[in-house]
Amino acid sequence: MNKGKVFVIGIGPGGLDYMAPAARAALELSDVVVGYKTYIDLVESLITEKEVVSSGMRKEVDRCNHVLEIADQGKSVSLISSGDAGIYGMAGILLELAGEDVDVEVIPGISAANAAAACLGAPLMHDWATISLSDLLTDWDLIRKRLDCAAQGDFVTALYNPKSKGRQTQIVEAQEIMLQHKSPDTVVGIVRNAMREGQEVEVTSLKDMCKCEINMFTVVIIGNSKTMIKNGKMVTPRGYRV
Amino acid sequence: MNKGKVFVIGIGPGGLDYMAPAARAALELSDVVVGYKTYIDLVESLITEKEVVSSGMRKEVDRCNHVLEIADQGKSVSLISSGDAGIYGMAGILLELAGEDVDVEVIPGISAANAAAACLGAPLMHDWATISLSDLLTDWDLIRKRLDCAAQGDFVTALYNPKSKGRQTQIVEAQEIMLQHKSPDTVVGIVRNAMREGQEVEVTSLKDMCKCEINMFTVVIIGNSKTMIKNGKMVTPRGYRV
Repeated sequence: MNKGKVFVIGIGPGGLDYMAPAARAALELSDVVVGYKTYIDLVESLITEKEVVSSGMRKEVDRCNHVLEIADQGKSVSLISSGDAGIYGMAGILLELAGEDVDVEVIPGISAANAAAACLGAPLMHDWATISLSDLLTDWDLIRKRLDCAAQGDFVTALYNPKSKGRQTQIVEAQEIMLQHKSPDTVVGIVRNAMREGQEVEVTSLKDMCKCEINMFTVVIIGNSKTMIKNGKMVTPRGYRV
Repeated sequence: MNKGKVFVIGIGPGGLDYMAPAARAALELSDVVVGYKTYIDLVESLITEKEVVSSGMRKEVDRCNHVLEIADQGKSVSLISSGDAGIYGMAGILLELAGEDVDVEVIPGISAANAAAACLGAPLMHDWATISLSDLLTDWDLIRKRLDCAAQGDFVTALYNPKSKGRQTQIVEAQEIMLQHKSPDTVVGIVRNAMREGQEVEVTSLKDMCKCEINMFTVVIIGNSKTMIKNGKMVTPRGYRV
């Protein structure tokens, strides 16, 4: 029996308005759709006639193995992530686990940093870095080192997973590391639920950022030395003479 | 007279299959569409009934001022960029130039790095940096410093604008800087025309990358110390035990 095709899909920040038509087409071609329950709910209206397998958080390896079993049965299957499946998403682990005889297509999406940036204005107009503050799978010392390098290089820096119930101190330490190289007045943008229900946007400074509400649905974008506030928007100049 | 609304739109990597429905809706709402000719051509089928203003390269400031004049006349207008308008695109300069009485909405898109990554597999699964090698608007010394910091921090690094007719040596210097901190066998992915006509994908190594064809339609993605080749795909592990 031929194996079914596997699509790994980034559905974008949340609303269907920001999901690529290619992702929608892949869902249509799929017999089965697999994903974390919250993301399944976001695309529910598109998959009413599909077999749906939703699962809880932190079951990423199981979820991917299940996807591969479904493909083994000759069914085509979509594995969905929010944002871009290739940015801290499910694409990597699926490819690590898949055999060479499985046809896997990764369909990119608008990732959380891009969505948050659009809400704020245009903070990512110059060289930037993205760092996840989750030390569940990465040594905290390596994350610290990356924060330091990003600050030294004057990169605009997008922080993913800045804080959760179980991780409260990392964002404070990240701020301290940044302050060793950057001005306390560096512009910082904070977006909760970017382009989803409950979206909230705040523009603040590096010295004050930890006074803002930061949770697991937040992206924090720390500007470079030239990032400014223009008409309430966060803008990093590209360097044109205006 | 009320000013018209301004949309700054990232149309994604090229094909309409990767443009968000929100971008399509904004084009529909616009009286006028403004952009660099190549990008106008990519959305041509959607704007047959619109007033279209296409312009050449390197006229970014003029183009933005023209957009604002159109809005002053009470017309709604879309300014289009390829990829994400907020990543080395037109969103920043438009916001720099716009007065506070202009309603500007930035609509994010799938940017070139995200598209190239999906073509390669999943190289951006861990912390990553993006650096443009164009020294037209940025001092080369700052770009060098950022390359050095990204390499020291073991970031996966996406290089935009790696090479053009007038800029041939920067990519070689970038390689040399990376080699000071990274193994010559570090996996490198090279994508020309990601998700456009003429797409070409190569997976190579840091020591051999400059033997590949690299032009202004190329994104180069240099892996971190753990990036690997799996079934011909470039994959950076997130850290799950598989």
